[in-house]
This record gives sequence, structure tokens and C-alpha cells, in this order.
Amino acid sequence: MSLSRPSGRAADQMRPISIQRGYTRHAEGSVLISFGGTRVLCTASVDNKVPGFLRGKGEGWVTAEYGMLPRATHSRSDREAARGKQGGRTLEIQRLIGRALRACVDRGALGERTITLDCDVLQADGGTRTAAITGAYVALVDAVNWLKARNDIKPGKGGRDPIHGAVAAVSAGIYRGVPVLDLDYAEDSDCDTDMNIVMNDGGGFIELQGTAEGHAFRRDELNGLLALGEKGINELFAAQREALAG
Amino acid sequence: MSLSRPSGRAADQMRPISIQRGYTRHAEGSVLISFGGTRVLCTASVDNKVPGFLRGKGEGWVTAEYGMLPRATHSRSDREAARGKQGGRTLEIQRLIGRALRACVDRGALGERTITLDCDVLQADGGTRTAAITGAYVALVDAVNWLKARNDIKPGKGGRDPIHGAVAAVSAGIYRGVPVLDLDYAEDSDCDTDMNIVMNDGGGFIELQGTAEGHAFRRDELNGLLALGEKGINELFAAQREALAG
Amino acid sequence: MSLSRPSGRAADQMRPISIQRGYTRHAEGSVLISFGGTRVLCTASVDNKVPGFLRGKGEGWVTAEYGMLPRATHSRSDREAARGKQGGRTLEIQRLIGRALRACVDRGALGERTITLDCDVLQADGGTRTAAITGAYVALVDAVNWLKARNDIKPGKGGRDPIHGAVAAVSAGIYRGVPVLDLDYAEDSDCDTDMNIVMNDGGGFIELQGTAEGHAFRRDELNGLLALGEKGINELFAAQREALAG
Amino acid sequence: MSLSRPSGRAADQMRPISIQRGYTRHAEGSVLISFGGTRVLCTASVDNKVPGFLRGKGEGWVTAEYGMLPRATHSRSDREAARGKQGGRTLEIQRLIGRALRACVDRGALGERTITLDCDVLQADGGTRTAAITGAYVALVDAVNWLKARNDIKPGKGGRDPIHGAVAAVSAGIYRGVPVLDLDYAEDSDCDTDMNIVMNDGGGFIELQGTAEGHAFRRDELNGLLALGEKGINELFAAQREALAG
Amino acid sequence: MSLSRPSGRAADQMRPISIQRGYTRHAEGSVLISFGGTRVLCTASVDNKVPGFLRGKGEGWVTAEYGMLPRATHSRSDREAARGKQGGRTLEIQRLIGRALRACVDRGALGERTITLDCDVLQADGGTRTAAITGAYVALVDAVNWLKARNDIKPGKGGRDPIHGAVAAVSAGIYRGVPVLDLDYAEDSDCDTDMNIVMNDGGGFIELQGTAEGHAFRRDELNGLLALGEKGINELFAAQREALAG
Amino acid sequence: MSLSRPSGRAADQMRPISIQRGYTRHAEGSVLISFGGTRVLCTASVDNKVPGFLRGKGEGWVTAEYGMLPRATHSRSDREAARGKQGGRTLEIQRLIGRALRACVDRGALGERTITLDCDVLQADGGTRTAAITGAYVALVDAVNWLKARNDIKPGKGGRDPIHGAVAAVSAGIYRGVPVLDLDYAEDSDCDTDMNIVMNDGGGFIELQGTAEGHAFRRDELNGLLALGEKGINELFAAQREALAG
Repeated sequence: MSLSRPSGRAADQMRPISIQRGYTRHAEGSVLISFGGTRVLCTASVDNKVPGFLRGKGEGWVTAEYGMLPRATHSRSDREAARGKQGGRTLEIQRLIGRALRACVDRGALGERTITLDCDVLQADGGTRTAAITGAYVALVDAVNWLKARNDIKPGKGGRDPIHGAVAAVSAGIYRGVPVLDLDYAEDSDCDTDMNIVMNDGGGFIELQGTAEGHAFRRDELNGLLALGEKGINELFAAQREALAG
Repeated sequence: MSLSRPSGRAADQMRPISIQRGYTRHAEGSVLISFGGTRVLCTASVDNKVPGFLRGKGEGWVTAEYGMLPRATHSRSDREAARGKQGGRTLEIQRLIGRALRACVDRGALGERTITLDCDVLQADGGTRTAAITGAYVALVDAVNWLKARNDIKPGKGGRDPIHGAVAAVSAGIYRGVPVLDLDYAEDSDCDTDMNIVMNDGGGFIELQGTAEGHAFRRDELNGLLALGEKGINELFAAQREALAG
Repeated sequence: MSLSRPSGRAADQMRPISIQRGYTRHAEGSVLISFGGTRVLCTASVDNKVPGFLRGKGEGWVTAEYGMLPRATHSRSDREAARGKQGGRTLEIQRLIGRALRACVDRGALGERTITLDCDVLQADGGTRTAAITGAYVALVDAVNWLKARNDIKPGKGGRDPIHGAVAAVSAGIYRGVPVLDLDYAEDSDCDTDMNIVMNDGGGFIELQGTAEGHAFRRDELNGLLALGEKGINELFAAQREALAG
Repeated sequence: MSLSRPSGRAADQMRPISIQRGYTRHAEGSVLISFGGTRVLCTASVDNKVPGFLRGKGEGWVTAEYGMLPRATHSRSDREAARGKQGGRTLEIQRLIGRALRACVDRGALGERTITLDCDVLQADGGTRTAAITGAYVALVDAVNWLKARNDIKPGKGGRDPIHGAVAAVSAGIYRGVPVLDLDYAEDSDCDTDMNIVMNDGGGFIELQGTAEGHAFRRDELNGLLALGEKGINELFAAQREALAG
Repeated sequence: MSLSRPSGRAADQMRPISIQRGYTRHAEGSVLISFGGTRVLCTASVDNKVPGFLRGKGEGWVTAEYGMLPRATHSRSDREAARGKQGGRTLEIQRLIGRALRACVDRGALGERTITLDCDVLQADGGTRTAAITGAYVALVDAVNWLKARNDIKPGKGGRDPIHGAVAAVSAGIYRGVPVLDLDYAEDSDCDTDMNIVMNDGGGFIELQGTAEGHAFRRDELNGLLALGEKGINELFAAQREALAG
Repeated sequence: MSLSRPSGRAADQMRPISIQRGYTRHAEGSVLISFGGTRVLCTASVDNKVPGFLRGKGEGWVTAEYGMLPRATHSRSDREAARGKQGGRTLEIQRLIGRALRACVDRGALGERTITLDCDVLQADGGTRTAAITGAYVALVDAVNWLKARNDIKPGKGGRDPIHGAVAAVSAGIYRGVPVLDLDYAEDSDCDTDMNIVMNDGGGFIELQGTAEGHAFRRDELNGLLALGEKGINELFAAQREALAG
């Protein structure tokens, strides 16, 4: 089936990815990640405390908060701080980011310490949650390396690195009947199915969230989306490695 | 692989399902649904207004709210009304229920009218969101039939029923290495992967949410979970039909 | 004066009362009480902590929270958790329930332990606060018996039971000029005076709240309402005893 | 039975009452009322709007808000505006004040107009709600007279004054076994039963709220309290009349 | 340039000042201050605790809260406690009052103790924040003297009084082209520049806040306003001394 | 007096200024401004509505919101959206930014239209409010030019540009006894007096806020600070002009 994506991309083509470490100065990890026009600032902050439910257990915690600058979007959205609460979408996304990143951390090795990943969208063009997860992973590695450099962290189980494997995320969806990778805003607001895929670099799924916004999707369509997702995520792992090597 | 589920159920065995219509008196649809020890009261309320973003468009809206009585759970949770906000989990679930039910409604046929599905958990034993979706569907059908009986509703596109197809949901997960259907609380709090599957009775997926709480899951595990889900959902469709025929 | 109550009841006739213990599974006491069409789920939850102002004093605490499911009523009310605060009526009722139940408890015998009575209205047809008090008493007794069965509770002063005497509540009002017992919604929304009466089984008043919604009431009318209330409350004590014996 | 009240008052003796009209400048009615050491500023504000549920019905509304300055009390309480919500006690009291004052107003005569009674406690020594009701009545009369002076108000039904009869309130309680009138803080915090009585000057009860804080009270005790209340309220009516004549 | 102030005052003339100590009974310091029609009740409350950031440092804290009764103003404003939050103006003013008063206190001499200055506007006619600062100073002195009388306070550094020097505040502005002192509401709502000046009695500036509400102001205009402010503040110091001597 | 600023700057030396227009894509004006290590993203959003108090008056509105990313600072601050309210400092700053920018706009020329200036601090090193004002001015000009390009805006009074004159802001303070320009964080947290100066390019003061954080400041010190401020602001006007010409 022939397809014309608004951006002219091929169905299995990611937008240009850029990962810039050290974007701001104070955080233990600070990464500006772009998936095309989507730009998210991901900072990792180390705090020598854990939430109440973990106190005294010798384990650490990794959590995330997500925000969108009011004019990151086409039309201005209300500032959540001014409205006095975070919306359901925001809470849902930050819970997803937190779960995704915890999946690659040996929390015992962290010690009683919290790493908070703040993902703030400076500019939105679709895929902000997948960019956030992918960038937050790099910020997390930087924060853990900062701890290691200060000898503030124990080795993980069996001497392994406290971070076991990489985590990245991408979206795929069915746009005008064709499965496509890494939806931008124009596609996202006009697609039938939208799927967010989070994987580790061992090829396992960490999180899978698919929503039929128009027609329900079939097993073969699901398989097509997962194949696209795997392809895209492998490109993201390469971009993460390159950034961390830089 | 041999398996011992805490409940003694077979791996592909649902808990006993019961669907009681007309559970309370005032709502246009009122259903008490049980998945084993999980009991959710689902009411459908018709209101002749739509949210601002739909005003004047001639379309209706279907939305959901979810709540848990404070002592629905093993230990008492704070009352969200007293804390002054709904938690992230609550918002996430009610957004899911709303999306799932909208997937089977011809909103043009509803007219400028909102149907609100309130899903309140009286007793929780795992799977509250899947029970809520499955029960809310029945309450929704009752509310639409109430509208039809008053001749208050137009036929859907092409003369079809405003409700096109049924919607039901079930969970599946990997418990001690084995894929199992319809997790109860004992399994849910001790499983590696938890997947919520929402389907329509045409065999299409409406929503798929899988989370690796322990090890990441592989494609073959995903396929096993989806097969279980399809089996369970077909049993739920039968239970819904039986209740609506009753 | 002849009278026609909407329900056809005699002026001094209660609605049918039903008290079902063990309605839900997790709470230490769980009671579904019905006064006619009014159905309230009352759970008692034991927690081994007390509020700050009692810490270290060796006394316990009994408190209540009240809620109404959004579609317990004729037309749907906003969910208080979604609005972000409990309304004045809710707070007023839950304060009343807490005071009423504390009046029958030897808090020294409880030890440093809180019993929370959650009263959630599943269906409303007038008299929800009086049904809540009457049902919460039964749930409280069950919770205290649960503590006794675990030998977790000291005898009250002088070896008495930690619960000294029963508590029940009923409403009475002046409907179309005639004092009537146990107002239902149709009467409540169209009466001149509405009185809520809480008594113990020693014949003493614990709380008396009378409001003239139309004309102010006179001493003789007050006396008539109190006589009706005493009669109704004695029937409620019998229903409580029967339920607890069951 | 002999009695020694902390203040040396006789059992049926009110504290000194003072009612000062025109205490502040901007409000249509502004009254500083003192019951002994309790001082409440009551203002009546006229607004040419009604709440949504009355719009277009040609009726007015009377409502009240209650507040306590943080250091009106022996030890400083949190400022409710800073805590971000009004407490249950505050809401309960302001609902009571509103109901009490609506009982003496012909709302049809008000027209589509709201009178808000703000009762702010400058200094608390027991009985703030009864002082508030008694003072708010005077402020309300001043506001209605202000409207009449501008010919902005229709006559009430049958040409009567829009305010039909006076309203005042007092507390009575059982202190060390003896019924006493107009409890001050020392008595209020150490009494067995506390009753708030709101009456009109036709001798009818508008609101009656009695709470057993220690032992439950008997019918004869109730009668004693009501007799005290009637005596006190008649003194308050005299004080109101004197103030309004002044 | 000739000028006609709405009040008929000379350009450098303050409104009549009155400072009444002991206005309410419970607070350690309680002052009703009037600048003409502006009346603010300032109470000082001593609490033997400090905020978290000072715990264990042996220093005290001085802080302020500001409020306006709903009908202190020409038309009624919403009650902040009912709206559920303090507005920006309120927070800004209470932060200013707190900073201003801390500038005259030796916090080491206070010990681990907080003095809270509650400034509640009973009637507003312009200049509420400057009246609040000027009155709160007197209440603060009374509270410190109360502590001294109980021998609860150490001498300040070098044996000095814990309060070093007085603090007072006044506004000045450019009204119809002419610099004038102590703006009332009529001037404040119609002036080009509004400046609030806080000084100590050593002639130093503690806070200076000037806002051009119409045309930007020039250096010479600023100098004129500061000269007026100094004159006014010296009169306020005299009024404070007289009140404290009284 | 010799001085050693932590940054090695001369007493009257600004930090390097950079103003980057078009930093994000969606806003009508989008400017990233840096004062040394302080980086603020300022966006201007045009909305064809005005707040209620201006409706129907034919005038526009300019307002501002301010935020700080949680890890813009040395240690992570709570996210205001998660805490559920904006702090007093935030509200104070955004009110200041709004007032400052309104001072250079002919609101009649805007028509019934709001321009919202969102100033979000990506990295903080002192002077965020002055950088925000200076950058927001450039974003505002871009938004007004966008309106002009669409012929959506009338000429200002007398055919003048709707923006009359530039606005910029800088801080000055007394650091270790010496007046210095443009405080960075190290100086700001250790200075005696901190002054924020907002001026227009006609040499007039728009806002002046000076706070003695240690010793009160004298007239000659004030004069020194104002002279520094004027020098710095002139450099900022040059930077704004250069950016707008670019």
C-alpha cells in the first residue's frame, strides 16, 4: 500500500534523533533529547532520601515527573501549577516514565537514595513520552556515573553495574491504514491506533500501551507495529550509546 | 510447566463472573459486576449536556469516573475526596474506561448528551479495571435502551444501533513463569508481567496495556497472554449477553 | 388530622429496616443497612495508630467518613474526589456520625488504636445520616468483637464491655402539618421541619438536630417529634440486636 | 443544687450583650456584637446577582460565611486561607447561620439579589455561632433598610416587610450537672451537654442542635435547657430592638 | 503646582494615625492601627517552635500573615479561605511584612521560638500594607516585652534589646502630577506612581517598592517621594513611641 | 574600596548577555535569554480573548506567568504543579513581569486580545526575574509584529506603534559593602541589599524594588545602585535592539 506521511518519511523511518548531554549545569544528569520537532529536557537529580515506604530497607528509588511548558504546544495550554493540579495525562505519563526506568536499575545497589527524573517538554510535536523515556535513560546513566565517581554507590548484585541494560521507547501507529514508526503530531492526531513501546536492549518488552483511537486493531496489525517498534528502538539504543560515548 | 495458582484455578480459568442489572434504582443503567471477590458497581447516568469542546457539534460524549471505597482493599486507603485529589492510578483507570467504552458508541447517534459511567469498587481482589469496563458496557447498553424507549435517540449511521458491538476486558499475566488468565490480588501482587486487554466482539483490540513488573517479557510470552485474553473475553461477552437477555 | 404519606405509611411507621453483616470481606466490620430505599455500606476499619492529639495518652479514637456515590441520588451529583473537596453537608454528616459513635465507646479500653467508620451511600432515599449511624454501630461492634477475639483489647472501666450501650438514629419531621417518623426523600424535600435524633439504649439523647425548613416549630410539635423518634429508635435497637445475634 | 460558674454568673444569666451598628464603613450593614468576651463582626453585603440555581426565578438569596481570625482564640489556629480550605466546623457554622437568617426573609420580596452575611470572629470566648446569628440579623435589617431607602426592594407578600420577625440564638448547656445559659469558653470546654437554640420572636424554634459531650441528656434536662434558651433569646430580641432603634 | 487632594489634605500631610494596644485579649501583642479610614488588626503570637529550616540552630523566626475581611473593601471580595487559596497580592504583602519586621529583630536573642504577626484588615481605604507594618511593629514589641516579663528571652548581642530600632512604613505617590504622602483609596486608584517605603529609625531603608502605574517616574520624582516618605515615617515613629509609652 | 566579586567581574560589569529569538516553534514570540548562567525561555502567546474584567471594552491585556524547572537550581525544588500551588515568590515575580510589560503597550491598539508571556527558567544563577523581563520584551515585540504582519492589529494612539518604548530590567546590590551590578547567585545569597530595577528606554523608572537583607541602606547607597542599574539597562537595551535587528 502506498503511503504519504505528512513529513515525507518512509513508514519505518524515525525522525532525526539528537541527544545533548550536560544541557543544564546543576543536575547530576541533564539531557536535551529531540525526536524531530519534539524537544524534552530530562534531568536526573540525586537525593539522599527515599520515600516513606522504603525507609530502612537499604534500597533506592527511581521516580519521574513530567511537565509541558505552556507554549510547547500549537496553542497555549494552561500551566498546571496555576491550575493547581497535574492533569490525568501528565500523571499517567510520569508514572510510565518512572516504571520504565526502574526496570533497568538495581535498586539495592543505589542505597537509600532517590533519583528523580524530571522530563520537561520544551517543544512538542508528538512522541513526548517516548522521547522522555529515551532521554531520561541517558540522564540516569550520567547521575549513576556521578555517584560512582564519588564512590558513593555499591556495585550491583554479583558485581554488576547498578544499571543493567538500556531502556528506550518509541511509538508506532496505523496512519491511514498503514503501520508507521515514530508518529509526529500531524500523524498522532489523525491515526487509528497509537502504540507506545518500551523495550530493553535484551529485546524484552518493558511496557506496551496500544490504543485504538478509530477502528480496533487486529493481531497482524499489532505484529506490524511491534516490528516497527523494535527497529526504531534499536536505532535509539545506538543514539544513546553514541551520546554516552561522546 | 506445572503451576499452582493460589486460588487453585487452571491457568486459563476465569473467576466466577456475575452481572446483576438494576442494582440501584436511580441510574439509567446500574450493574453490579463480580469477577470472583472483585465487586464493582457501574452506573450509567444520562445528562442532556456535553462538555464545552463538543458544544454545538451535534455529537454526544461518553466518559467514566472510577473510585474505590476506602475499605474495598485489604488495609484501608485514604478517601480521595478527603485528600482533596484523585490519585494518578485513579485518573489513569478512569481515562482507560472512558476510551474503551467510547470505542463502541456511535456518538453522532447519541445527540448532544453525555453518558457518565461511574465505576465504584465495593470490594477489590485484583482486576478492578477490567471488571469495571465489562460491567460498564452493560450499564451503557441499559442507558441507551432507556433513551430508545423514550424515543430520545436517533438511529446510528446507516440505521445501525448507536452501540456497535460489545466491549469487555480482562487481565492476564505471567505468574511464576506461567501465563495465567484473570489475575486475582494474590497473583497480581506477585507477578512478573501484568497485561490488561480490552477487545470488541469483532475480535479487534481496543486497548492493550502490558507492564513488566519483574523481568521484561518476550514476544512468545506476549502471544501467550493475548491468547488467554481472547479466551477470557469471549466468556465475558457470553456473560454480558446472558445478563442483557435476562 | 388525616394524612396521606407518599409511601402510604402510617405517621409513626418506619420503613422496612434490613441490616446485613459481613457485606464486604476485608473490613473488621462491614454492614449494609437499608431504611427502605436508602442503602448505606458501613465499614469499620481498625488501625493501630491514633491522631496526633491523642498520641501517648493510652486512649483510642473513633471517627467517621461519609460519602455518597455520584449516582446514589435522583440526578447525578459531582464526585467529591473529582471536585477536590468534600462539601459542607458531607463534613457535617461525618462529624455527626463520629460524635454519635464515640458516645458509646470506652476509649480507654480501645488502647492507642483508631476505628474508622466509612459510611458510603449506595442508594439515597432520605435519612442517609440516620441509617449510617444505625449501621455503623453494628459495624463498630463487629470490629470490637474482632479485637476481643484476638485478645487485642482490654476490658473497659470496671470490667465493662468497651462498648457501653447501643446507639441508633432516626429522623422525624412535620409533613403537611403532621409529625411523621423516618422521612423518605419525597417527604424530606417537602416538609416544614426536619429533626435528626440520636439516642442510646438507656433512653438518653446523644444528639438532637432540628431545622425548621418552613415555619418555625413549637414546643408541642417538638414533643411530638421526640415521641416519634423514641418509638422508631426502639425498633432500630431491636433490629441491631437481631442482626448482631444472627 | 448550688452551682459556681467560673464567671460567677447565675445559672440563667447572660453575659453582657453589646451591639454596635455601623462598625465598618463600606458594608450595607455592619455590626460588632459582643456576648461578653466573644466579639464578632457581622457585615451584610448586597449583590445584584443570585446563585445559578435561582437565576430567572425572581427570588433572592441570603447566605453566610464564617471565619475566625487566627488569634481570636487562646492559642493561635492556622489561617484557613493559608491551609487552603475551610474546616468542617467552619462550614457547619456558616451553613447554620445562613439557614437561620433565611428563616426570617421573604425571598420573593428581595428580588434577584443576594445578601451575604460575613461573620468574622475577632475574639472568641464561647458562643461565637450564637453571637454571629444574633448580630447578623441586625446587619441584615440594616441592609434591607438600605435597599428600601433606595426604593430597590418590593414589599413582601401582602405588603409585609421583607423581613418577617426577628431571629436570635443562644447556647445553653449542662455544666457540672446544672443547666446554665450562654456558655463561655471555660464552661463550653468542660460541659456535658451543649445546645444551640435559634428562635424567632414569635416563639418558634428555627434550629435546635444539642450534643451530649459527656453523658446523654434526658427529656427533663432538655426541657430545662429550652427554658433557659427562651429566656436568653428574649433578652437578645430586646438588645436587637434597642440597637435598631438607636 | 497647586493640588486638590480628594481628602483636602496638604501634599505632605498624613491621615490621622491611631494605635490602640490590647485590642483583643488572647494574643501576646494585639494592636488596632488606623491610618484614616484604613483599620488593621495586628496580633503577635508567640510559639515555642521554629520552622524546619531553623530547627536546632538556636535562632528564632518572625513571620507574618495578611488577610482582608471580605467586606473590608468597597465591594465584597471573595473570602480567600472559601476560594481555597491566598491570592498573589496577599502573599506578596505578607512576605513584605515578614521581611520588614525581621529587619529589627535579633533572632539569636529570641531563641527557638516563632513570633507570627497576623495583620487582618477590618476596613480598607488605601495603605493597608504600610499600616500593617507600622502596627505589627508595636504588637511585636508587646510580645517581646511579654517574653521579657516572663524571663523567657535572652538579651540580644552585646546585651542589647532583642529589638534593635523601630520599623514603620508609609506610601507616597504621584497624584495628578504632584508627589503626595500616604495615599488613600481615592488617590491610590488614580495615581501615576505608587511607592511603599519601609524605614528604620536610624534613617535607613529596609524596603522600597515603587511602581509606575501610569507614566514612568524620573529620578527627581523619586527623590520627592522619598523625602515625603521620610517625613511621614518620622511621624509614625512618634505615634509608635507614644502608643508604647501609653 | 577594592572588591573581589566571585566571578571576577568589575563592580559595574554585567554578565555576558545572549538573546536568541525563535527558540521554540509554536509561540508567536519565543526567546531564550541568558544573563551568564541564568537562562530563561520567554514565549509570547496571542489569544483572541480578554479576561472578564475587560470584556467589551475594546482593550487588550498583557499578562505573565513564571516558572522554574525543578532542577534549574543547585538542589532540586518541588515541582509547583505537583505541590498543587504556585509559591508566593512565583506569584510575586509573575505579577512584576506582567506590570513591567504592560507599561510599554498601548492596550487599546491590541484590541480584545491577550498576550501571555510565559517565562520559564531552564537554569538559574541569580537574576531570573530581570532576565525574564528583558527577554519577555523581545518575545512581546515578535508577537506584536506577527499580529501586524497579519494586519490583525490597529495602529496605537496617534498612529504610534502599539509598543511604545522598550523595557528592560537588571539587579544591583551591595555586596561586601560595595555596590555591584547584576548579581549572580553567589552574590545574591550573600549580599546586604538587593535591588531590582525596571526602566524604559526614555530613562524612566517602571518599577523599583529594593530590599535590605542585612543592614538598612542609605540614600547615597541607593543612588549608587540606581546609577549602576541605569548603566546595565542601557546595555540591555542595546542587546535587545541587536537581537530584534538580527
